[in-house]
Amino acid sequence: MHARIFVTLKNGVLDPQGQAIEGSLSSLGFEGVDAVRQGKIFDVKLDETDHEVAKEKLAQMCEKLLANTVIENYSIEIVD
Amino acid sequence: MHARIFVTLKNGVLDPQGQAIEGSLSSLGFEGVDAVRQGKIFDVKLDETDHEVAKEKLAQMCEKLLANTVIENYSIEIVD
Repeated sequence: MHARIFVTLKNGVLDPQGQAIEGSLSSLGFEGVDAVRQGKIFDVKLDETDHEVAKEKLAQMCEKLLANTVIENYSIEIVD
Repeated sequence: MHARIFVTLKNGVLDPQGQAIEGSLSSLGFEGVDAVRQGKIFDVKLDETDHEVAKEKLAQMCEKLLANTVIENYSIEIVD
């Protein structure tokens, strides 16, 4: 089973990297960009067939390692 | 308009960070993880109402700045 985990900064948390990208896009001549925020994806191949069990396992991985839940949100999508 | 850009490593490109995460998950006792690959998300707020125009603009941003197309793939999703 292939799952994709999205980890993004919570609203209100400063994102200097996103701001730098926004500045660079503007320097390159791209107009009309109001905001950029950067996040992470984890593509995980799991040896598990039950979707619910897999989601529970992936949520635990996020809580313990993949996301800093103080400043980040995560969401899980089962791809196949 | 809010768009999300996904940037992931192409198949065959080594991902040491993903491998490190795989190792850490195993150390933490998570079993059955076959592979982890890490990628990036960019959440972009654009001052643009036409979806096709926005997608074209975002693709140019990827080509010029957000993705290294030698080793990375990108995909664009219009969220709202």
